[in-house]
Amino acid sequence: MSDVLTTPLLDTVDTPTDLRRLAPAQLRQLADELRSETISAVGVTGGHLGSGLGVVELTVAIHYVFDTPRDKLVWDVGHQCYPHKILTGRRDRIRTLRTGGGLSGFTKRSESEYDPFGAAHSSTSISAALGFAVANKLSDRPGKGIAVIGDGAMSAGMAYEAMNNARAAGNRLVVILNDNDMSIAPPVGGLSAYLARMVSSSEYLGLRNFAKKVTRKLPRLVHNAAEKAEEYARGMATGGTLFEELGFYYVGPIDGHNLDHLIPVLENVRDAADGPILVHVVTKKGKGYGPAEAAADKYHGVQKFDVITGAQAKAPPGPPQYQNVFGAALTSEAASDDRIVAITAAMPSGTGLDAFAKAYPDRFFDVGIAEQHAVTFAAGLAAQGMRPFCAIYSTFLQRAYDQVVHDVAIQNLPVRFAIDRAGLVGADGATHAGSFDVTYLATLPNFVVMAAADEAELVHMTHTCVQHDSGPIAVRYPRGNGTGVALPETPELLEIGKGRIVREGKKVAILSLGTRLAEALKAADALDAKGLSTTVADLRFAKPLDEAMIRRLLTTHEVAVTIEEGSVGGLGAHVLTLASDEGLIDGGLKLRTMRLPDLFQDQDKPELQYAAARLDADAIVDTVLTALRHNATGVVEGARA
Amino acid sequence: MSDVLTTPLLDTVDTPTDLRRLAPAQLRQLADELRSETISAVGVTGGHLGSGLGVVELTVAIHYVFDTPRDKLVWDVGHQCYPHKILTGRRDRIRTLRTGGGLSGFTKRSESEYDPFGAAHSSTSISAALGFAVANKLSDRPGKGIAVIGDGAMSAGMAYEAMNNARAAGNRLVVILNDNDMSIAPPVGGLSAYLARMVSSSEYLGLRNFAKKVTRKLPRLVHNAAEKAEEYARGMATGGTLFEELGFYYVGPIDGHNLDHLIPVLENVRDAADGPILVHVVTKKGKGYGPAEAAADKYHGVQKFDVITGAQAKAPPGPPQYQNVFGAALTSEAASDDRIVAITAAMPSGTGLDAFAKAYPDRFFDVGIAEQHAVTFAAGLAAQGMRPFCAIYSTFLQRAYDQVVHDVAIQNLPVRFAIDRAGLVGADGATHAGSFDVTYLATLPNFVVMAAADEAELVHMTHTCVQHDSGPIAVRYPRGNGTGVALPETPELLEIGKGRIVREGKKVAILSLGTRLAEALKAADALDAKGLSTTVADLRFAKPLDEAMIRRLLTTHEVAVTIEEGSVGGLGAHVLTLASDEGLIDGGLKLRTMRLPDLFQDQDKPELQYAAARLDADAIVDTVLTALRHNATGVVEGARA
Repeated sequence: MSDVLTTPLLDTVDTPTDLRRLAPAQLRQLADELRSETISAVGVTGGHLGSGLGVVELTVAIHYVFDTPRDKLVWDVGHQCYPHKILTGRRDRIRTLRTGGGLSGFTKRSESEYDPFGAAHSSTSISAALGFAVANKLSDRPGKGIAVIGDGAMSAGMAYEAMNNARAAGNRLVVILNDNDMSIAPPVGGLSAYLARMVSSSEYLGLRNFAKKVTRKLPRLVHNAAEKAEEYARGMATGGTLFEELGFYYVGPIDGHNLDHLIPVLENVRDAADGPILVHVVTKKGKGYGPAEAAADKYHGVQKFDVITGAQAKAPPGPPQYQNVFGAALTSEAASDDRIVAITAAMPSGTGLDAFAKAYPDRFFDVGIAEQHAVTFAAGLAAQGMRPFCAIYSTFLQRAYDQVVHDVAIQNLPVRFAIDRAGLVGADGATHAGSFDVTYLATLPNFVVMAAADEAELVHMTHTCVQHDSGPIAVRYPRGNGTGVALPETPELLEIGKGRIVREGKKVAILSLGTRLAEALKAADALDAKGLSTTVADLRFAKPLDEAMIRRLLTTHEVAVTIEEGSVGGLGAHVLTLASDEGLIDGGLKLRTMRLPDLFQDQDKPELQYAAARLDADAIVDTVLTALRHNATGVVEGARA
Repeated sequence: MSDVLTTPLLDTVDTPTDLRRLAPAQLRQLADELRSETISAVGVTGGHLGSGLGVVELTVAIHYVFDTPRDKLVWDVGHQCYPHKILTGRRDRIRTLRTGGGLSGFTKRSESEYDPFGAAHSSTSISAALGFAVANKLSDRPGKGIAVIGDGAMSAGMAYEAMNNARAAGNRLVVILNDNDMSIAPPVGGLSAYLARMVSSSEYLGLRNFAKKVTRKLPRLVHNAAEKAEEYARGMATGGTLFEELGFYYVGPIDGHNLDHLIPVLENVRDAADGPILVHVVTKKGKGYGPAEAAADKYHGVQKFDVITGAQAKAPPGPPQYQNVFGAALTSEAASDDRIVAITAAMPSGTGLDAFAKAYPDRFFDVGIAEQHAVTFAAGLAAQGMRPFCAIYSTFLQRAYDQVVHDVAIQNLPVRFAIDRAGLVGADGATHAGSFDVTYLATLPNFVVMAAADEAELVHMTHTCVQHDSGPIAVRYPRGNGTGVALPETPELLEIGKGRIVREGKKVAILSLGTRLAEALKAADALDAKGLSTTVADLRFAKPLDEAMIRRLLTTHEVAVTIEEGSVGGLGAHVLTLASDEGLIDGGLKLRTMRLPDLFQDQDKPELQYAAARLDADAIVDTVLTALRHNATGVVEGARA
């Protein structure tokens, strides 16, 4: 298909300005070509497919009707933006998606003026669009803020907070609810059920007539009592009351694949004197591509695939993924402990908890995109004697930081945190990199913070989490595959705050936290070969530190280097602080810390990202050699590490 | 009044078990006595008054009807819990509220089994109560989760996330919406308007009949189609649709001061077979105490006061509060720069922004208890060229950490953060202590993090924030009064990443960030008197560090000590990391960091808290002398600092 792909209309469209020169009757063909091009491109690159296919017509209609980039279009999450990128001057680079130096898989301000606000985490779009709208209103400049947000993203509290404040924008704010009835996982919670009930109702069937009625009604948005009553009646039939109550004028539902419905309604919305307006658009994820429509996940995220058959490239065989090791370990633990419950925020598969959910559906809670609730709900469960696991990616746990501090840490409640996607994550780039969790958790009193060096360690640490009832405990581990080490038949209960010596030497000590251990061992071999006898320790715990071991290593080696997959303020800072508190650094010890650099790293292959971050074996060797070159008078001779 | 206070019924009630022995007809008198005792106690201690007075009857009714402590009662925020404390075994200590060693001004697990979940930050109660309810359901144990939450707290996304997940609890979850139509500030946003519209409706007037109707209906909660239609009709009249749509059975509104309404309805709710149920109770803040009812803020937070007249003790005259210095400085800046906008999350007065709001109402946004939205809204404003200030307390900014990372830092957008209540906060205790912000912000690339050493510095730093358009910038400052330094007539533009030498010496260097500067100067005098010539630097910036100054100080002094009002991972860690990166610690320098201890400190007077934290002049002197006692071989002689 990609060989024979002909896109005569799309070839004439580089930017929305070109698009707006087309006649309305041509848009159907343009959408078809845009869909084909999207499928062809993702076949080459892999990435998010189903979401983009669901909004092909919406993308065309929005750029056709609204005055982008003056009108600020904010795609929530941004993983549905590939068709948008093709239409906004980036078609020539669309086959570089998610690769080093290529286009981002999300919207990104530095890429295009048509991306006024970057995204990747969910549910930020209404707040951002409101910011644009209010800024223009205050400056008396033209231009609307337009947020396109999925039904799943609507389950996050942040979206509700934004809707609750939307009135400030007046008619400059347009929210398009892209209701595809399936975000990453099946939608959960009251709101989704409510939307589903409504979409399936008999009133929903006469879509065309309904759209016409809406179109007629738009010009007179005066809210007198009679109309309000009519609105309520309409809302009861169609689902608008929730949004009406939050201050929106509700329009919909509209068939999001029918341009004859979309264009006139959006034109009316654009020209409406009142607002804010919420347009409820119903779409199908994976729309128009058979293999995607047929797949359970609608090709949400895919490998490279064959466009004709839809067959995805198999991931190369290798060790199990950390997420699945965790899922299996927790499921196994739960067999003998009915106090274990598992909580995910809309990531049952990504966290590996799908296995747990299958085995123990009553003890599994997918709370939707609601990390704040997830954590405090877990705190309540823990306070009543359960053993709750919150499985949340490192960056997404940032959404619940106050709940981690206020509800878990201050109360010293034994909530277990399984923190996936710790460290750099490759193609998803900076927004998904789990760089900060050690820093933001280890600074909290009462917390135990572990990092797994390999998948066997993750099994032990999961078991240790289960058994730790005296306070909060977290284990972090990376995206991707383990090292291939054998998994233990029986998990081991680790002593809290005790590391392990992996390799004993005399002159150089490498203190590793997490999966850089393999690089540390490589570096140790290289250093040994240079005559520098090297110890390698896997600290296991960023908090509490193994103070005895660290004290011994720092006082018996000439150079000590910490290494971690995290930002400044984490393990290295805690080791330096201990060494400083105890005066261990007073006597000529050369102590160095290796950590992520002070910048947001762009997408690339993980191994290249870590090389760029100077967190590989070569960099460890360099750091040690540079430290040894410094003289003992406190005067810096070498370059800054 | 406190002299002549007689409470014959209340004297017989130590716990809810005693309460339940009373006849329903006695409850009115008990409530009156409880109200008098609450007023009397807060007259002595100061603290939160209006909220507690608003829930006197509700407190009595809940403990009378429900089986506390087996039923888990979670007060949202917890500042309304004084009557609850009096009824749950803590009357003898009620006049120690908010003092060192005394009762907390919020609920606290360690105080009583009747406080199953501590609070202080808003909007956590439904999630926590859901945790209790689900734990009991899974264990097949009796016991409900009961959340009492105000209308203001309902504006937070977290409450919505929890409501959206409430179905998991079935009839074990009861949410009582305490609608007093005025949280800390006048309610804002669509939800509050909606509630107000409803409460003022004519249907609301026949309260007694309505409650009776509800009472009749409760036993048969079967949702067949006909009843659903009736529910919708009822919801439209009374405001229940929002909650119905989120999966609750809605009951109300009910007069929250009428025990004859409250008791039977709560009994029905207790015995209902279906759920979850939301009971909408309307109360008056400050109810029953004339001076409170007459005051604009309903005596939300008060000083000690005279019970007869309501006259509050005047705060001792002194320098202006930091919050007001900030508010005045920003208002002054805004006069010549119409790009400045100010955002608060329900704290217009606490942040000092009330002055700004009065002068520039169009550029002032109180978004309600919605920190997440506040930050991303500000990011949108910044992306469109405005100069937004988010004024949010240090602990509350934790609510928006992901937005700070994902929407502000990664995109390098110039959002200005005015972070009040940084450091220890006195009577509000651990939940409100601003301990972590330097750590969690300075670890982020692109961020500028400042701390004001006094109120004149705050004026300069506010001005510097205004002018800093190249990325995010934050200034932190404490609760309470300034030092009395003269305020500048013209604010100074500080150079980013440059500190200042306050006092020059030779042997000891104190590197201070924030308002510990005064203690550092005292310590320097004491050290000088001991023959230890001491330099004091005000670093001003935790990020970027003044590397040149720090390099000079560390290489020209024998002992260097950092001091900050924050937790591990902050300034001290960044200075240690710089010194380690550059090998400055290799040569015998004694570098120490002074920071908050690794525990959550309880309420006390701030100066006592800082003494306990070892962050005063005495502790600085000790730290320097202990460091000097360490010998130069790396072997520790002294005790751990």
